[in-house]
Amino acid sequence: MAAALAQARLAGARGEVPVGAVVVAPDGRVLAAAGNEVEAGHDASAHAELLAMQRAARALGGPSGGRLAGCDLYVTLEPCAMCAGAAVHFRLRRVIFGAYDPKGGAVEHGARVFAAPGCMHVPEVVGGLREAECGELLRAFFKELRT
Amino acid sequence: MAAALAQARLAGARGEVPVGAVVVAPDGRVLAAAGNEVEAGHDASAHAELLAMQRAARALGGPSGGRLAGCDLYVTLEPCAMCAGAAVHFRLRRVIFGAYDPKGGAVEHGARVFAAPGCMHVPEVVGGLREAECGELLRAFFKELRT
Repeated sequence: MAAALAQARLAGARGEVPVGAVVVAPDGRVLAAAGNEVEAGHDASAHAELLAMQRAARALGGPSGGRLAGCDLYVTLEPCAMCAGAAVHFRLRRVIFGAYDPKGGAVEHGARVFAAPGCMHVPEVVGGLREAECGELLRAFFKELRT
Repeated sequence: MAAALAQARLAGARGEVPVGAVVVAPDGRVLAAAGNEVEAGHDASAHAELLAMQRAARALGGPSGGRLAGCDLYVTLEPCAMCAGAAVHFRLRRVIFGAYDPKGGAVEHGARVFAAPGCMHVPEVVGGLREAECGELLRAFFKELRT
């Protein structure tokens, strides 16, 4: 999560919403890390965790079938429906997130993607890891935006 | 939908699951079209509609804020949670899909992303447009796979 927090801080410094993510292989190797790139990429879907999963899958290449079986995602904020849905497609082993997101989150809130009937793959979920630090980054960013 | 079907057929010819999508601007212009690229991109998230939305947003560039306000998505299959979640972030006006997907769909099935409590943007949805043709492409593809 330290690496995800570092990505979140870098994203904030670029004027992005400070969320960061890393994908870790079964052997502990970091396959990819990313922060939000919504502003830079003119792409509302360029969330840290989606980018990290995509880049990790590309790093693994063909033999993986584009999936991340056995891999873990660390992300500083509870994933939204898009990113939780992506975690299903990538067949992640675990999703570990920092701050809970009652508004946009779709793991413990909203669409609760992993708990939906017929969800094709359900990763293990750990929420609230280094929650205070992860959330404080976001609160400081939005407070600054409003002033 | 004819253009989305054409993309689906092209995807099938490349060995991808035959799903296609196009994003249409408020003035009727096609901003982007894509078929599935999961196999080619070694990327389990490379669904036709996500790619089409991302490419459309990039085509619009900076002034759009990375969003597709007022735009419509045509896709041959009911979107999954990832793609429905992306449609929320992109602020699509309408999502028009062909075949219903009781297994993987998350608009009329499963996580029902647009109906989830707190969903931040709810596009108008039209399901079942040219459903038979869209579904037949998929049935033929999977039948061939099994033989």
